[in-house]
Parts: sequence; structure tokens; C-alpha cells
Amino acid sequence: VTDQHPFDVDTALAGSEPSFSATISDRWTVGGGHANGGYVLSVCLRALQRLLDKPDPLVVSAFFQRRVMPGPADVRVDAGRSGRRLATGEARLLQGGRELVRVVASFADLSQASGPTVVSGSAPVLPPPQDCLDLFSRELPGESGLAAPGIAGRLECRTPQLPGWLQGSPNGQARAEFWMRLAGDRQADTMMLPGLVDMAVPVVFELGHYGTTTIELSVHVRARPAPGWLACRASTRYLIEGYHEEDFEIWDSTGRLVAQSRQLALLG
Amino acid sequence: VTDQHPFDVDTALAGSEPSFSATISDRWTVGGGHANGGYVLSVCLRALQRLLDKPDPLVVSAFFQRRVMPGPADVRVDAGRSGRRLATGEARLLQGGRELVRVVASFADLSQASGPTVVSGSAPVLPPPQDCLDLFSRELPGESGLAAPGIAGRLECRTPQLPGWLQGSPNGQARAEFWMRLAGDRQADTMMLPGLVDMAVPVVFELGHYGTTTIELSVHVRARPAPGWLACRASTRYLIEGYHEEDFEIWDSTGRLVAQSRQLALLG
Repeated sequence: VTDQHPFDVDTALAGSEPSFSATISDRWTVGGGHANGGYVLSVCLRALQRLLDKPDPLVVSAFFQRRVMPGPADVRVDAGRSGRRLATGEARLLQGGRELVRVVASFADLSQASGPTVVSGSAPVLPPPQDCLDLFSRELPGESGLAAPGIAGRLECRTPQLPGWLQGSPNGQARAEFWMRLAGDRQADTMMLPGLVDMAVPVVFELGHYGTTTIELSVHVRARPAPGWLACRASTRYLIEGYHEEDFEIWDSTGRLVAQSRQLALLG
Repeated sequence: VTDQHPFDVDTALAGSEPSFSATISDRWTVGGGHANGGYVLSVCLRALQRLLDKPDPLVVSAFFQRRVMPGPADVRVDAGRSGRRLATGEARLLQGGRELVRVVASFADLSQASGPTVVSGSAPVLPPPQDCLDLFSRELPGESGLAAPGIAGRLECRTPQLPGWLQGSPNGQARAEFWMRLAGDRQADTMMLPGLVDMAVPVVFELGHYGTTTIELSVHVRARPAPGWLACRASTRYLIEGYHEEDFEIWDSTGRLVAQSRQLALLG
């Protein structure tokens, strides 16, 4: 029993560099019973934040080589260059001595960023969250909801209209715009964003493909998010012989881009 | 003196895993006298191809921690999981014992890819290369041109119209579509594509910013390219406090997407 949010409890580490111990929770599992990749990435980033002397994961690349199951894990870290502006390091997550995930990241202090700004994209245009549909149609947040296994209990999603796939008729358009936040009154920060881009339902669901596995995920964190709901935009433009990218943007409640990601995934 | 193309000569390795020796050539330098990141990445991928039992670099992430200068370098490799479909490994490029670049990549055999294809993007619409302008306005290819130092001598670019920045008036639109190929009759292959996405002039030039440094580059190779010119599309949508992404697509002469990349870079 703890007052801490599941995101913080379930990414906690014991030990010290170069090797930390983690416990992969069953609260972030997906269909196959393994842990969501975004959650596993968050565990690895926590180890990197301990290693590096900068607070914000500016750019992250994660290779998901094998599925991660609930239970004990080791996270081994290794420092690269630490400069004035950027500090780079690597984390490998292992279970039973086998390497499952390899993450390289450069951390920075985004509060120190200064330079020109020219933005040609724009935030998703969505009705306010209270006028949208709850994608999971569950009562949230609540102690029982938060304690339930599975990542659906960790997230709140609000969409202007019900997705086609959820009504049994995928609409053929692999793109979506929606609100998202973690359930349970935990505001987003830069450490959460790289995981969050991998937690929503894959947009290839709208092409009628309900199973897909992330091979690699790259995330750019562009700013510290303001409190409140996050406006998200996901799209897949190129599904080619089973392989597809998914691009994801997260905009904060003040209309600022805070994260941008791309992953390569394989159907099935 | 050799019949081999500079791309092949200048990415050649001596030694064997886990440590190769390379010679960084001055034929791929950019303004500051250091080597272009795409070329350095190609050297690292060549080491990974020797390590891994799959032919095509399916997905690649490179962290450029320090500039790489012409001269000797070591490339140290380390294998991750090797499965039926994917083989993952890592390469670190060092000069004088200092790590400069770290690359993680998953290789696959793209000739074995099978699965659904749904493409919603489309190739750049460009006049034929012979009706476009030669961006570098030089006589190419030719023995002297190919022997000249600097990456401009390695590339051929053809654009429908002269970029604004080249006429001294950046047009404010950080996007471009153009033809590209290596100079000197060397057809593209999947080993060349991850480097090629980083060899064109950055599109932030059209915002009036003429210096930018890649922090991380992620590339998805989606198919083996057909012979001929490559149609390219580059764009930067979010320049925020000096940091910007650059997205890059390469389409082959049959109108097929063959590579897609995103990098995070910092002005100055």
C-alpha cells in the first residue's frame, strides 16, 4: 500500500550503477500477458536518469528484442559522452540473464534550451475532453480500477467519436487524434512522455490488423509538458509487406508540442 | 588506384569482430572539415553486416556524440539477439580511444518480407532528372570530381528549381523534393540508404539557418531499391528553441518507398 502512483511504483529501481534491479509489474500488460513496451522503456529511462547528470530524456531509441514478462529484471547501464549540453548513455534490460531490450538515450536540461522557434505543424483540434467519449467505457479513476492488471486500467483516452475497429468495422484510415493521460491524477513529465507514445492502441487497428509488435521506437522530447490532458495524433502511412511505421505526436494543454515519436513495427 | 567506388573503398574495414579498423576518408567531409554523419554511419553498418547473419539494415539508430575527423578509427561491435527474422547488434566508432558514435541496428532479409501492404503516402512528383537543375552546378561525374575532397563531390542532386537559400533568400519553407544519387555510377542498395538520408543539404537552410548538428538519426529501410535516380522528400516541421527534427523519405525509380528517416538536430 502506497500513496505513490503506479507509474512511479512500477518503475522503481533498487541497487546502483552499473546494475539496477527492477520488478516488472503486471499492471502494464497487453494482450499476450507481456509488459507494454512504453512501460519497459520507462523503467530503462529511470536507470539512465540515475546514471546521467541531466534531467530530461531529449532523444531515446529503444530496440525491443524479446518480450518482457512481469517479474524481476536487471537493468545494466553504461555511460557514453557527457558534455555541457547532452549526456548519452545506454541501458539493457535482462530477465533470467537474457537481454530483452536495449535503449540508448541522450539527456539534456530542456529548461536551458534557447534558440529559434519555427513551427509549421499544429495541435490536434479536438472537442474538450469532457465532451468526448471514454475509449475504455470504464469507471476511472478508482482504487479498484487502478489496481486491476493490464495497461487499459492505467490509461484514460477520450476520443471525439468511437473508432471504427471498436465497432467491428475498421475504417481503413490508419490515423487518430484523441486525448490521453495516465489514470489516477499523475501529471505527465518528460520522463513519462517516451513511454506514453507507445501506450495507445496502434492505429493499424483501423486497417483491421489487431496484432503488431514494436521492433524499434525513437522519441524526441521537445518540451516539459504543462499540467492537464495531452492531445495526441497517431498515424501509419506505410504498411509494406507487414512492416509499418507509427508516428505519434503529443501536445500539452497549452497547445505546445512536447513529444514526437516514430516506431517500426511488424504485424502479427 | 582502384576500380571500386569511393563509397565502397571508404567504408572498407580491416580486422575482425569484435574490433575492426577503418580509415575515415576526407572525401566525405562537410563544412567544418569533419566527416558527414551518414558516411560515418555507413562505416558502422558495414561492421554490423559482418557481425550479423542478415543482409539488410532494417532499422538503424545512430547517436553522434562527437565529430569524426578524417584518419584512422576503430569500430567495436557487440551482438544482441539473433532470431529467425531479425538480428540486432551495436557498433561504436572510436578515434584515439574516445567513443564518437554509437549505432544500434536490427538487420533482416527484406527479400523474405511478406504481409499486407497499405500505402497512403505517395512519391514526390518531379520532372525527369534531365529536366532538373544540378544543385551543385559542377561537371559530374569525372575522375577529378570524384577525387576532390568534400561530400559535394560524392553526390548528384537535381531539383526542379533553385532553392531559395542558394540564391541568398531562404524561402521560409523547410521542405524540399529532389532527385539524388551518388556520383560515379554506383547504384543504391540497402546498405547505402541509411547514410544517404543524412547527406543532402539540411532543409533548415530554407529558414536561414546554415549550421546544424545531428544528435540522433533513425532510419527504416523498407525495400531494396531498384536501379536509377532516387526521389527524395525532406521536411522540418518543428524547430523549437534550436532543436529540430528532419524527416526524410527516399523513393526508388519504380515509385516505391525504400527508406524513411527522422533525425533530431541542434542549430549552430
